[in-house]
Amino acid sequence: MAEERVQRRLAAILATDVVGYSRLMERDEAGTLAALRERHNSILAPLVAQHDGRIVKFLGDGVLAEFGSAVNAVQCGIDLQARMAALNAPLPETQHIVWRIGINLGEVVVEGDDLFGDGVNVAARLQALVEPGGICISGKVRDEVDRKIGAAFDDMGEQVLKNMASPVRLYRLRSGPSASGAATRSRP
Amino acid sequence: MAEERVQRRLAAILATDVVGYSRLMERDEAGTLAALRERHNSILAPLVAQHDGRIVKFLGDGVLAEFGSAVNAVQCGIDLQARMAALNAPLPETQHIVWRIGINLGEVVVEGDDLFGDGVNVAARLQALVEPGGICISGKVRDEVDRKIGAAFDDMGEQVLKNMASPVRLYRLRSGPSASGAATRSRP
Repeated sequence: MAEERVQRRLAAILATDVVGYSRLMERDEAGTLAALRERHNSILAPLVAQHDGRIVKFLGDGVLAEFGSAVNAVQCGIDLQARMAALNAPLPETQHIVWRIGINLGEVVVEGDDLFGDGVNVAARLQALVEPGGICISGKVRDEVDRKIGAAFDDMGEQVLKNMASPVRLYRLRSGPSASGAATRSRP
Repeated sequence: MAEERVQRRLAAILATDVVGYSRLMERDEAGTLAALRERHNSILAPLVAQHDGRIVKFLGDGVLAEFGSAVNAVQCGIDLQARMAALNAPLPETQHIVWRIGINLGEVVVEGDDLFGDGVNVAARLQALVEPGGICISGKVRDEVDRKIGAAFDDMGEQVLKNMASPVRLYRLRSGPSASGAATRSRP
């Protein structure tokens, strides 16, 4: 029996990736990296902090962020996609940078600043399953945020994720005016 | 729209109550209160702190404690019941103090030091559903602790709880040698 006690905590994990990252890099490597850095500094980092989250690490074209609250994580995802869409709107389509976002929650293992476990792995797989600009959340997240934020979710059914023993119930955040950032400011 | 932003976090909630509290109080009010206070100071408060939890409040004969980790909450419950059983063992049965414990997890609303929401309400209802000395956990807790602690769970099925719209899946912690506190000290 090891003496060391494993550090664990309940956390909501938000993972992003960039749609067509390889294609963007092929076309203009320096320009893409500069644009990603600019989005990170002006949108991602401030919004994660504003929702009481922290950026755990960078994963190639994506990031992993941790939140103590599932509502905060989902609201951050909604605000991120709204800000990215607003930034893309006036640009020619070839300069658009579009994210997919996945959000899961679970009991994660903490090692220093890093996080491990299924809670993290599932989040990192979810974003691949949603349309560009979309947000995919697990059923566990949906159970905690339902009726607590001004957004609707479409059932994507149970899906088998790579290296996961059991299928995971997934929901797609429905975009539209109800997904505005204002909703969580009101009392429950 | 209110300006104030609601504080929320994911938390595991442990609730205890004392079996036959009214009967104990009828028989010997001062002695029962002294015995409860002694158990609180010598067992409950130290074990909750040892598992990185905090006591939120006292509820008549019980307490509500908050943990950042579901594994810590369940392990604390197991250790609490083991210590209480050991303390009762040499005493005449009329002096036994026996707890029921319920554990749930969810996104709770934080106001100062207090917590609100279904995550709390369900925990406070679960302990009534388990045998004296037992631990009842919700399916959400079971999903997070399964294969992470050295304990087994028996399915109690879906049960309708007072004031809850949907039935809640419940599990009873199986007592026995596998429920020792040593298991979480090993790596996952």
